[in-house]
Amino acid sequence: MSSHHIVKEKQEPALIIANGEACSPELLGQLLEWSPYIVVLDHAIYRVLDLGIKIDAWLGDFDIDHNFDAIRAIQEPLEIVNTPDQEHHDLEKAIIFLIERGFPAANIVWATGRRADHAITNITNLVKYKNDIKLVMLDDYSKIFPLTGTFEKWYVAGTPVSLIPVGKVNGIKTSGLKYNLDDETLVMGYRTGSSNEAESDGMVRISASEGDLLIMECWDL
Amino acid sequence: MSSHHIVKEKQEPALIIANGEACSPELLGQLLEWSPYIVVLDHAIYRVLDLGIKIDAWLGDFDIDHNFDAIRAIQEPLEIVNTPDQEHHDLEKAIIFLIERGFPAANIVWATGRRADHAITNITNLVKYKNDIKLVMLDDYSKIFPLTGTFEKWYVAGTPVSLIPVGKVNGIKTSGLKYNLDDETLVMGYRTGSSNEAESDGMVRISASEGDLLIMECWDL
Repeated sequence: MSSHHIVKEKQEPALIIANGEACSPELLGQLLEWSPYIVVLDHAIYRVLDLGIKIDAWLGDFDIDHNFDAIRAIQEPLEIVNTPDQEHHDLEKAIIFLIERGFPAANIVWATGRRADHAITNITNLVKYKNDIKLVMLDDYSKIFPLTGTFEKWYVAGTPVSLIPVGKVNGIKTSGLKYNLDDETLVMGYRTGSSNEAESDGMVRISASEGDLLIMECWDL
Repeated sequence: MSSHHIVKEKQEPALIIANGEACSPELLGQLLEWSPYIVVLDHAIYRVLDLGIKIDAWLGDFDIDHNFDAIRAIQEPLEIVNTPDQEHHDLEKAIIFLIERGFPAANIVWATGRRADHAITNITNLVKYKNDIKLVMLDDYSKIFPLTGTFEKWYVAGTPVSLIPVGKVNGIKTSGLKYNLDDETLVMGYRTGSSNEAESDGMVRISASEGDLLIMECWDL
């Protein structure tokens, strides 16, 4: 699906392919279009090989046996990184790997759906690295990213924009939304800002004084 | 799929069918087996009608037009409850409805998958009602429920048991897990107890002194 032998300049966001539910070929195709640096997690390698995608790095704790030589032969050059560390789950290892390699940004796919424990951990862990790398998680229904500083974006009227606090988030101020918040607090499990939307064609602004907020653009198919 | 004209004694958990990704017919069939009291959320009604399931109550803000007479004719007797309240999302309205009707327990399906904002809000909101009704959320990969008091259950060795804090949870103590916690803290987004498992055939015990913990039994298909 993608073939690239150029030296990558880290100008495009890297792409992490995790091991949750696959996204549509269209979404994956869009993300592959600019030949990003691609990291694949552990068992996802076989699904990626089936799609004929050329990848750059394969990370995992490799707790089951793989035919490394055969995979390397198809994917040469391929960096295979053994990450036995039990303190971080697979997606975190890939994020840390990209931070260490100096990537300023990464898109993440196949990280949602399937097991709820993995999905919710993958989604909420985005906030942990928000000051180190610009992360965006995508699936067929959602675009998810952590708030840093003041978020500003032009939206078409009615575009769903949800504010999901990871824990407690204080001092949330918004403008341009249908239900704006004025120095308010959201608490995961109790009061979230799900199912908000852009009030009219124009700028939406979101900021918070304390805590970790995820912004989600979601849609029904 | 289910037909029941008996008076329901509220001994079986009620069943809430939300509007996320459908579960397998097998899982739904198991939950319908004992003819539970069934509540369906808003637009999910059409998917439920397609499956030929007899339901008891239909809740929604009914922001689009429905042919109420036609639906009532198929489902008689059917309680239709208009819930225009903007402060609670659809799943919360169904939970509150069942609490008010005196149900001690409910299973919830079709509440995960699809839009990440809805899924994460549905999952984490379970903790808000943990002292009012016993809730269990199920999909094809996961069984999710909030911790109340001390959790004790016999598991087969290797059964995945994940501890997912909603916010910050202090004083977590476990026994019987592969990675036990001894008076430790988990924080959503930073340190979760995902991908733990029963160490051997036997009892697993989980308690916490403060905060909201979700327990997730998850599996890969």
